[in-house]
Amino acid sequence: MNVLRRRLLSPFALTRPPPVASGMPLMENAGANHWTEAPLQISIKGILAQMLETLDEADRSRLISLGIGDPTAYSAFRTPHASEDAIEEALRSRKFNGYAPTVGLPQSRRAVAEHLSRNLPYKITPDDVFLTSGCTQAIDVTFMILSRPGANVLIPRPGFPMYELVASIRQVELRHYNLLPERGWEVDLESIKALADENTVALVIINPGNPCGNVYNYQHLKEIAETARDLKNLVVADEVYGHLVFRDTPFVPMGTFASIVPVLTLGSMSKRWLIPGWRLGWFVTTDPSGKFRSLEVMHRLKKYFDLLGGLPTFVQAAVPRIIKETDEAFFKKTVDILRESLDICFSGICDIPCLSCPQKPEGSMTMMAKLDLSMLEDISDDIDFCFKLAKEEAVIILPGIAVGLKDWLRITFAADPSSVAEALRRLKSFCQRHSKPDQQG
Amino acid sequence: MNVLRRRLLSPFALTRPPPVASGMPLMENAGANHWTEAPLQISIKGILAQMLETLDEADRSRLISLGIGDPTAYSAFRTPHASEDAIEEALRSRKFNGYAPTVGLPQSRRAVAEHLSRNLPYKITPDDVFLTSGCTQAIDVTFMILSRPGANVLIPRPGFPMYELVASIRQVELRHYNLLPERGWEVDLESIKALADENTVALVIINPGNPCGNVYNYQHLKEIAETARDLKNLVVADEVYGHLVFRDTPFVPMGTFASIVPVLTLGSMSKRWLIPGWRLGWFVTTDPSGKFRSLEVMHRLKKYFDLLGGLPTFVQAAVPRIIKETDEAFFKKTVDILRESLDICFSGICDIPCLSCPQKPEGSMTMMAKLDLSMLEDISDDIDFCFKLAKEEAVIILPGIAVGLKDWLRITFAADPSSVAEALRRLKSFCQRHSKPDQQG
Ligand SMILES: Cc1ncc(COP(=O)(O)O)c(C=O)c1O
Ligand SMILES: Cc1ncc(COP(=O)(O)O)c(C=O)c1O
Repeated sequence: MNVLRRRLLSPFALTRPPPVASGMPLMENAGANHWTEAPLQISIKGILAQMLETLDEADRSRLISLGIGDPTAYSAFRTPHASEDAIEEALRSRKFNGYAPTVGLPQSRRAVAEHLSRNLPYKITPDDVFLTSGCTQAIDVTFMILSRPGANVLIPRPGFPMYELVASIRQVELRHYNLLPERGWEVDLESIKALADENTVALVIINPGNPCGNVYNYQHLKEIAETARDLKNLVVADEVYGHLVFRDTPFVPMGTFASIVPVLTLGSMSKRWLIPGWRLGWFVTTDPSGKFRSLEVMHRLKKYFDLLGGLPTFVQAAVPRIIKETDEAFFKKTVDILRESLDICFSGICDIPCLSCPQKPEGSMTMMAKLDLSMLEDISDDIDFCFKLAKEEAVIILPGIAVGLKDWLRITFAADPSSVAEALRRLKSFCQRHSKPDQQG
Repeated sequence: MNVLRRRLLSPFALTRPPPVASGMPLMENAGANHWTEAPLQISIKGILAQMLETLDEADRSRLISLGIGDPTAYSAFRTPHASEDAIEEALRSRKFNGYAPTVGLPQSRRAVAEHLSRNLPYKITPDDVFLTSGCTQAIDVTFMILSRPGANVLIPRPGFPMYELVASIRQVELRHYNLLPERGWEVDLESIKALADENTVALVIINPGNPCGNVYNYQHLKEIAETARDLKNLVVADEVYGHLVFRDTPFVPMGTFASIVPVLTLGSMSKRWLIPGWRLGWFVTTDPSGKFRSLEVMHRLKKYFDLLGGLPTFVQAAVPRIIKETDEAFFKKTVDILRESLDICFSGICDIPCLSCPQKPEGSMTMMAKLDLSMLEDISDDIDFCFKLAKEEAVIILPGIAVGLKDWLRITFAADPSSVAEALRRLKSFCQRHSKPDQQG
C-alpha cells in the first residue's frame, strides 16, 4: 500500500519537473548516470489494475467497475453496425494496405474537419486536422509542440492524470488552477491570473469535463478565451467528451472563440461513437486567423507525426463513412442511457450520508463525490475507502487523489443503469457498515 | 531547388543536436523565444513528394516509383486473405471495441514473442514485447528511453533517415559509422571503436539492411555484439526486413547474441506480411539475462506507452491468427518475386556505364548504386540526377544524399518485375542521353 500511496500522490506532488532529465535510462550500467530521477507517474489504468489485484478470485464475477470511461463492456453501449461495415469495406477494398500520410488520409482529415465545422462559426480546413491515436496521442502531440525550456502550462484540478504523465515526460511544468465545485466546477479565472507568468504558454480546459461532469456555457467559455488572450496564452481544449451532454447546457466547442485566442482542439471518436478501442482521435488547430499555419509550424508538426507511426490506413479510411452514417438516433440513445445511469448514480449518492455531490453533472461520463471521513469509523482516506470497497463489495471507483482531489471519489456512470444501481446499493451498505455508530440511520 | 537541397543535406549535416531546444514553438509570439532553431529534417516520404511535384500531369500515369519500400501498389504483393479474415473476425466479435493495455493485448504480445522465439536460442516472454505503430514507433520508443543529456548513439551511414529525425527531436547526438561497400556493406568495426566514448549508449544496426540490401552473417553479427559489449553499449537491431533474404546468407536475428550484449529488437509486420498500412510493429527487449527487466525500467516503459495511444484493439487482436495462418508458401512467393525484381534491377544497373553496384543485395527491398558523374554531361550531383530523371522519364528513385551517401542512388526493387524492367530501360536511356559524347557506346 505504501508504494501505491506514493505513486498515487506523486503526480500531483509534482509541480516542477526535474531540471535536466529528458528520458529514462534503460540500464543502470549503460554509461554514466547523468540522469536525475523523476517521480513515478501512474495512470488511472494503473491504479485500477492495482485495485483489481486486491480482489478475491471469487469476487471477480460480481465485479462492477465504475472506474474507467470505457462503456463498451455493456451491451447497451454498442457502436452502430454501419461503423463496422465501414471498416470492413475499407479493409476488403485492399486499397488501404499501404502507408498513409503520417498526418492522416486526406479524405479522413476532411471528414473530421467538416464534422467539427458544423458547430463552429467558420470552417476548419482538412489541413488543420491531424489524425492521432485517440485523444491520448493528441495530448502527447500538444505537449511535444508546447514544450521548451522553462515553459509552463495551466491545467485544471481536479483533472485528467494523463496530463501529469505527459508533462513529466516532456518536461513541461504544470501549474494547477482550481475548478470551483460550488460554481458548477467552473474555471477559477482568478487563480489562473495568479498562476500565469511570462513562461506560461497554454491553458488547458476539459469540457465536457472529466472528472467533474461540468459543461461550460457560452459566457464562461468566452471569459476563459478572454483571460487566455490577456495572458498571451493559447487554449488547449480537450473535447473528448464533446456532445455528451444530458441536461440544459448545450455543448459549445472552444473553437467558437478562436477569433479571440488561438485554440488547439483535442478529441476523438472514443466516447461519442463508443469505440475507445478503435483509437480514432484528432489534434486540430482551430485557428481561423491562421496563427498556427506558418510553413515552419506545419513542417515541424508533420515531422513529429512522421515519428508517431500513425493509425492503420484502413481504419482511417473508414472515418468518412462512419461520420456520415452514424445518425442522431444513435447519439440520442447513448445520451439517454447515460442520463438514466447518471440519475441513478446521483440520487444514490445523495442517499448516502457520508457522500455529497456539489453539482449534478451535465455531461461526460464521470462525476466527483465528496467523502466526509468524520462520519466513518475505520477509513483513513479516499485510497483506503476505495481499496476496502473493492475488497468488500467488488465495486471499483477511483480515489479522488488520482485526479488531484484528496478525500473525494471519482465515479464513472458510463455503465448500464442496472449495474449502476447495484453498485450504488453496495456502496451504500459499505458506507453504513463503516459509519460511526452515532451516524447510522 | 535550393530549399530542397538544404533540407536534403541538413539531416546528415547534423552531428550534434542544439544544446537546449526540447520542442517546437507553436507560435512565434507565444512567450519569449528561448528556443534555438534546429535544422529542418525531411523524411524519405517528404523528398519523394517533392519529386512527384516536378512531374507533368501527363506523366503521372506512366510513373514508376522505385522510391519507397511499399510494394502494396502492385498486385503481385498482396497479403493473404486469412489476414483480412483475422481482422474481420476480431472486429465483428465486438469484443475488441474497448481499450487495450497500452503496451498491447496479452495474447498478441504472446504471439509475437513466440514468433520471434522460433529463431532464437532461448524464449522471449510476452512481457518483453511492446506493440507499436510499425517499426517507426519502435524507433521513437527506443530513442525516448535512450535519450539523456549528452548521450550519443552510433548509426550506420548510409542509413535510414527516420533515425536522424528522431534524434533531432529527442536531442540525442548521432555519430555515423560507415558501412563498407567493398565488404558487402559490413559494419566498419574500427570506425565504431573510434567514434564511441563514455557517453555512447547504443549501436544501431539495420539487418537486413535498408538501404544497402546487406544481410550479415552469424560471424559478423557476433563481432558486432562483442564490439558493443566491449564498449558497454547495447545494440538496437532494426529488423523490419527480417526474413526477407534472397540468396545464400540466412537471416540471423541479433537477439541470437543477447547473451553477449543486451539487444533491443525493433520490427513489424509491414514488410514481410506486405501490410505496411496496418501498422503492426514491435519493440522487444531481447534479453535473456533480464538486464532490462527491472521493475523500474518496465514501469517507465509502460508509462511512455500510456502516452502513445496504442493501436486499435481489434487490429491487435488479429495478430495471433495472422501469424498462425500465414504459411511458408506466401513468404516464399514474396521472396521469389523480390528476387526476380532484384535480378532485373541489378543486371540493368550493371548494364549502365555510369552506374555501378559494389555488391548484389542479399535481402531487404533496396539497394545502392554509385553514380559516376564524370561520365555524364549535364548532371551536377545525385539530386540533380534524380530530379531530371523524374521529369524526363517519370521514374522516381531516391538521391543517395537522403540516406547519407552523396552521388549514390537508392533504388527500391519491391515492385513487380515488369515495372522494374521498364524503369531500368528508362534509366538506361536517360543515362545514355546525358552521357558525355565519348562515353556513348
Ligand atoms: C479528459 C480526457 N482526455 C483524453 C482522453 C483520452 O481519450 P482517448 O481514449 O480517445 O485516447 C480521455 C479518456 O478517458 C479523457 O477522459
Ligand atoms: C530500416 C527501416 N526501419 C523502420 C522502418 C519503418 O517500418 P514501419 O513501416 O513498420 O513503421 C522502415 C520502413 O521502411 C525501414 O526501412
